[in-house]
Amino acid sequence: MTIIIKVTIWNEFLHEKTDERVKAIYPNGIHNELAAYLEQFDDIEVKATTLDSENFGITDELLDNTDVLIWWSHMEQDKVPDEIARKVADRVLLGMGFIVLHSAHYSKPFRLLMGTTCSLRWREGDFERVWCVNPGHPIAKDIPACFELPNEEMYGEHFDIPQPDSVVFAGWFRGGELFRSGCCWNRGAGKVFYFQPGHETNPVYKNPNVLTIIKNAVYWATPCNKRTTLVCHHFDETTEQRYVKGLTETY
Amino acid sequence: MTIIIKVTIWNEFLHEKTDERVKAIYPNGIHNELAAYLEQFDDIEVKATTLDSENFGITDELLDNTDVLIWWSHMEQDKVPDEIARKVADRVLLGMGFIVLHSAHYSKPFRLLMGTTCSLRWREGDFERVWCVNPGHPIAKDIPACFELPNEEMYGEHFDIPQPDSVVFAGWFRGGELFRSGCCWNRGAGKVFYFQPGHETNPVYKNPNVLTIIKNAVYWATPCNKRTTLVCHHFDETTEQRYVKGLTETY
Amino acid sequence: MTIIIKVTIWNEFLHEKTDERVKAIYPNGIHNELAAYLEQFDDIEVKATTLDSENFGITDELLDNTDVLIWWSHMEQDKVPDEIARKVADRVLLGMGFIVLHSAHYSKPFRLLMGTTCSLRWREGDFERVWCVNPGHPIAKDIPACFELPNEEMYGEHFDIPQPDSVVFAGWFRGGELFRSGCCWNRGAGKVFYFQPGHETNPVYKNPNVLTIIKNAVYWATPCNKRTTLVCHHFDETTEQRYVKGLTETY
Amino acid sequence: MTIIIKVTIWNEFLHEKTDERVKAIYPNGIHNELAAYLEQFDDIEVKATTLDSENFGITDELLDNTDVLIWWSHMEQDKVPDEIARKVADRVLLGMGFIVLHSAHYSKPFRLLMGTTCSLRWREGDFERVWCVNPGHPIAKDIPACFELPNEEMYGEHFDIPQPDSVVFAGWFRGGELFRSGCCWNRGAGKVFYFQPGHETNPVYKNPNVLTIIKNAVYWATPCNKRTTLVCHHFDETTEQRYVKGLTETY
Repeated sequence: MTIIIKVTIWNEFLHEKTDERVKAIYPNGIHNELAAYLEQFDDIEVKATTLDSENFGITDELLDNTDVLIWWSHMEQDKVPDEIARKVADRVLLGMGFIVLHSAHYSKPFRLLMGTTCSLRWREGDFERVWCVNPGHPIAKDIPACFELPNEEMYGEHFDIPQPDSVVFAGWFRGGELFRSGCCWNRGAGKVFYFQPGHETNPVYKNPNVLTIIKNAVYWATPCNKRTTLVCHHFDETTEQRYVKGLTETY
Repeated sequence: MTIIIKVTIWNEFLHEKTDERVKAIYPNGIHNELAAYLEQFDDIEVKATTLDSENFGITDELLDNTDVLIWWSHMEQDKVPDEIARKVADRVLLGMGFIVLHSAHYSKPFRLLMGTTCSLRWREGDFERVWCVNPGHPIAKDIPACFELPNEEMYGEHFDIPQPDSVVFAGWFRGGELFRSGCCWNRGAGKVFYFQPGHETNPVYKNPNVLTIIKNAVYWATPCNKRTTLVCHHFDETTEQRYVKGLTETY
Repeated sequence: MTIIIKVTIWNEFLHEKTDERVKAIYPNGIHNELAAYLEQFDDIEVKATTLDSENFGITDELLDNTDVLIWWSHMEQDKVPDEIARKVADRVLLGMGFIVLHSAHYSKPFRLLMGTTCSLRWREGDFERVWCVNPGHPIAKDIPACFELPNEEMYGEHFDIPQPDSVVFAGWFRGGELFRSGCCWNRGAGKVFYFQPGHETNPVYKNPNVLTIIKNAVYWATPCNKRTTLVCHHFDETTEQRYVKGLTETY
Repeated sequence: MTIIIKVTIWNEFLHEKTDERVKAIYPNGIHNELAAYLEQFDDIEVKATTLDSENFGITDELLDNTDVLIWWSHMEQDKVPDEIARKVADRVLLGMGFIVLHSAHYSKPFRLLMGTTCSLRWREGDFERVWCVNPGHPIAKDIPACFELPNEEMYGEHFDIPQPDSVVFAGWFRGGELFRSGCCWNRGAGKVFYFQPGHETNPVYKNPNVLTIIKNAVYWATPCNKRTTLVCHHFDETTEQRYVKGLTETY
């Protein structure tokens, strides 16, 4: 019996409508580009949603039916209301996977989950070589020791993130910078993967290695356990007493 | 030349005024108990402040003169305004050390920096044995393999925190639970140490091992570098071009 | 198309032949007990081997056909020759998964991979409660917040291991100790999971949670990428020059 | 009262005697170059020793008087006998600090402590820019966001090391590679810092940032606690029983 992984791709979907260069690359939006790729896999079911959809593209019903949420945003990060950002972050803490792409380092839900500014050094237009620094990690599966992105935005250190639980990829830029480009964290019962490539003016989401990494990340971020609450567990009895009574403990 | 470390102890200071049991243990408040201990060290300079002081005990001038901030709070965590919590968290990201005690796992600035709920399992009244799981860590200096706290509040797993950069201590409770009791994180240019012992109705801050741990944490959390900004660095020129011009890069 | 994971279970297989208590629990040996459980899964193919088999149970042909190696040993750890231990460790560095059970904390290949003594505090006979401290980890899938092992050997801190990449489980013992009971490391392109429960005189490998954890660990430890060499890569040309020529880089 | 840190610098001291280029840079050897720098600090006491000294430069008496051992080696790593390498590694596990420079990534004691091959990609002669990725770490104290080494040997990923407890520096090379250049691990009660810069044909150990980093690493690696044994602690009594008797536990 195949387990189906429910993936939702949330996209700001602004550049693709207003910038001819971006429209030429992703006429249906980055969300549909990624959706078309992920739909090829029998055990992945994809929905796509955008900032201009109902309730900013995030409804409870949608989240109830999402195992892994992929997020691309840039110019209108601030248009996502705080309560929507909180709702997304809470779902991650309860177990949902969260894949954060490129400029979404500055998205509200990612910053809530990181607790740092997520600021970085940047510059438009450079050549990037992505090196794998953790070949045994599931997100590195089938990825070579390095691969190149001839046109990418430079994101460089210091990247103000909490120390990742694993750094899987690091990016080298001709202009003289480097970056922790692929980073993993556990947060609550959920998993978060940040991946730097994906500037809208370059066809980065057509690169086979980039796509494989995103697909690997979907499998990696699929929930293992779901938590039942985000608040403290309090019992007057000790766990030893509860055990004698045959009571069991939940997350 | 001795470097002086400027420590500020912030205390909610409510239980000590309203609960006779607590008043009997800490007649001058937990803040003054800890201050009296830390003042013994020549290279530590201590200030103490409380929730009922000017601006909730947190002024810019105070923070300008704080290398390490120690925080105890419980019942009135929510009385600290969001903008004060943000200000404290930002100072940590810029380099300030932050030592978070006991029930302050639920304080606003700690939760902002962690990005998780910081929820846990709890029960009043148990016997705790604190084990060191990282004897080479500077916060473990001069601490035995384990030590006991005959009366302590039970805090147990699952503790909803990001994976610590180092777990230094773990607590064993007779009631059947365990806990990551002493945890370290880097956040921005600052360092954060959470330490679980310190329930107000027990004289835990008179225990010599507990005091040594707090003192060790002060030295460990002292800033190494201060960041100059919390926002992104952007330059049109590459770092290679800037280097040729003799320009230098800051955090 | 289902990918088949090739699992080899290596067992010292001595207690089961010489100690009536152990024989009564595992008449066919711990290896066959675990094999019978894992064989239920369609995508897992199991072989079992023992210290008294050809070449100490470890041949190149066997390792060529092993994705994940499970290892139980105790009294005769030293009978495994150094060159066999090295061969096993090297296979891990090339990508093989390695699941190390109970007293095999002192096995030669585990110690080679850890680089520390792997010493610990121990005492026969106690009650253990295993707590999950990382509910989002794939090895914790379907495991409750805690579960009990009424009879288990106590292993306690300080456990002299490198800081794990993830601690998934921690054990609480009635006698007053705690332990990092389920620990993960990446080593080279391979993954290592150490799991403490499994003393031979207790039917621990019949406990459903213990079995689920071992099965989860098999999936987790399955190789992602295999390295082609364990020695340094040296090229006179830069990676930039090699890229222009269309050369690709391997691990 | 100032605590004196006893530093021993062990150098292979071969290139400096046989290669005119190296002799011109370090006429008294790399060990004496580093010793002269470290001796400026009032609380650091320095000894230097070399492979061609008594017992390969490593005696018990010397180790008894060493808090932090700095190690440079390259061509004759294999001339260090296995038992000397084991002795050094064991001292680290007992608490000694260990700073491993450049080509000593392949030294026997470092490989013993890491448990991996420590292999890497390399090429003679490139321009390196060292970026700090953890500005709050004590080894980064007073180091700018990046600094340059116009002539350095390229060491690149994949570097086959265990995931560091902290990565403090990462190196960017013009030829297209990057590297985790400054890495920290706890091992037993000791601390290990690997630092990549320091090829013998370049005056890297005259660079003020490199020297500051080595000095910072000395302070960071100074022992906090010493372990009393490397073998398991076994007691028939529980820790609870031993506590009642007033017995204390050691590492």
